[in-house]
Amino acid sequence: MEINSECFPCFLKQVLNVCDVIKLKEEERKEIMREVLSYLSTASYNMPPPYLSRDVYNIISKITGVSDPYEEIKRESNKFALSLYPKLKERVKKAEDSLFEAVRLAIIGNIIDFGAAHNFSLEDINSFESIPIGINHYDYLKKDINQAKSVLYIADNAGEVVFDRILVEELAAKGKKVFFAVRSKPIINDATFQDAVEAGIHHYAEIIDSGSDAPGILLNKVTERFKHLFRDCEVVISKGQGNFETLEDIPRRVYFLLRTKCDVVASTLGTNLGDIVILKGGRECTSGLLLL
Amino acid sequence: MEINSECFPCFLKQVLNVCDVIKLKEEERKEIMREVLSYLSTASYNMPPPYLSRDVYNIISKITGVSDPYEEIKRESNKFALSLYPKLKERVKKAEDSLFEAVRLAIIGNIIDFGAAHNFSLEDINSFESIPIGINHYDYLKKDINQAKSVLYIADNAGEVVFDRILVEELAAKGKKVFFAVRSKPIINDATFQDAVEAGIHHYAEIIDSGSDAPGILLNKVTERFKHLFRDCEVVISKGQGNFETLEDIPRRVYFLLRTKCDVVASTLGTNLGDIVILKGGRECTSGLLLL
Repeated sequence: MEINSECFPCFLKQVLNVCDVIKLKEEERKEIMREVLSYLSTASYNMPPPYLSRDVYNIISKITGVSDPYEEIKRESNKFALSLYPKLKERVKKAEDSLFEAVRLAIIGNIIDFGAAHNFSLEDINSFESIPIGINHYDYLKKDINQAKSVLYIADNAGEVVFDRILVEELAAKGKKVFFAVRSKPIINDATFQDAVEAGIHHYAEIIDSGSDAPGILLNKVTERFKHLFRDCEVVISKGQGNFETLEDIPRRVYFLLRTKCDVVASTLGTNLGDIVILKGGRECTSGLLLL
Repeated sequence: MEINSECFPCFLKQVLNVCDVIKLKEEERKEIMREVLSYLSTASYNMPPPYLSRDVYNIISKITGVSDPYEEIKRESNKFALSLYPKLKERVKKAEDSLFEAVRLAIIGNIIDFGAAHNFSLEDINSFESIPIGINHYDYLKKDINQAKSVLYIADNAGEVVFDRILVEELAAKGKKVFFAVRSKPIINDATFQDAVEAGIHHYAEIIDSGSDAPGILLNKVTERFKHLFRDCEVVISKGQGNFETLEDIPRRVYFLLRTKCDVVASTLGTNLGDIVILKGGRECTSGLLLL
């Protein structure tokens, strides 16, 4: 998905968010803002937004010397999500279709902004049941999972990874070999190896380094391991908007689980803003995985 | 008031708003965005936001050839506001303190976004009575008006000028000579001479060209006439955020009537976002009007 003009105010809001997290003074904020504006004015706009997001975050890190501004927030997000875990498992056990409930919870993990969710309760999770499902390709997903031996699961955020674990456990219980791909280094609140381990994913899946240091999967940056798994796993599940933005039009079937959090993505998907999406996406590969 | 780092996403959102109004295609939007980003990366940040807003709008005009994108919206805003006028007058007549009611209505005129208000009703105006007044220096304003011979009234937006007329009529009925200052050329939906005439202001006040072509009063750009009136009128009333941003710290008493529409202004004023403000502002002049 190419950058849209509507992405630009959003890039700058993300800059302010990071500045808030690092508690920067106004003078430093303006210095960062000037650098980011200068970079954005010369960047290429023919690429998915996460390419530019990564560069914007690197500018902030370079100026401030802070390489992982969301570190504390990520630790707290995991801790908080883990406190919900037993009740989440109970829901899946009681559900008529445990796979569907696990998919739904994984998307709910994408809905919660863990950075600001410390007063979040299980009642709030119940309230998410009323969120419309704008695209629901669950039946395809279920069928493909049933036929698959291996699943590549591309993670999104810290905190959310605990909700992902519920789905990963379901997949493992069905005898699937699961590979759980994380960012290769800290970027915003995206899940890294440490977050996946904190969430306990390693008990049910092999955690792998995607090679991406952006809030999405940059296919020209991925590890050899990721390349092979992306090609060979029968099912690929991608979480969140960032991964969708970088993977939506590649020649590979990918199941995207996310909530639409901005107008650009909602419009690309043809859903309303805020809808839940279970999308059988990507393009059927007709001539080998040319990209890889 | 100096530009704040939080102003930058807002500048870009304003660009997108204009692009929407002109119905530009995505390619042109990106071209404009790149130019604006480049300009903002080199601009001086030690000035009030309207200085940069003006330049940003000029960039859009230059690229698109559209000098007054909000022209139609301004005409419609005035027409719509005029349709409410008889009922507004009735409210003032019935009010216990007609001046206060007129001040309140003038601020309500600042609240309504006329560009999107075509289904707006008088019931909605009633609902504004519950908006908190974060700063209420009305008693000072009333006293100063009673002692004044002349009032300089600095206008803000089209549509809103019809609500201003209600207050201008009150001032004229009290025997005050009123000067109504408008922008010297179109900028966003700010009121120009044409808007003031459409609102019928000329029956009760002398409409004057402020000399400013920005969404605020740039004191290094004002006309000689404005300068003299700004110095000599006993009371100066300034409407809206833009004028506040450019005039708030000058050595001249100014009454600011506005609603806080962004966090930066709310924080500068120490109010909550969305509050109504009747502020005895500016600084008492101790050594002549140095600025002028």
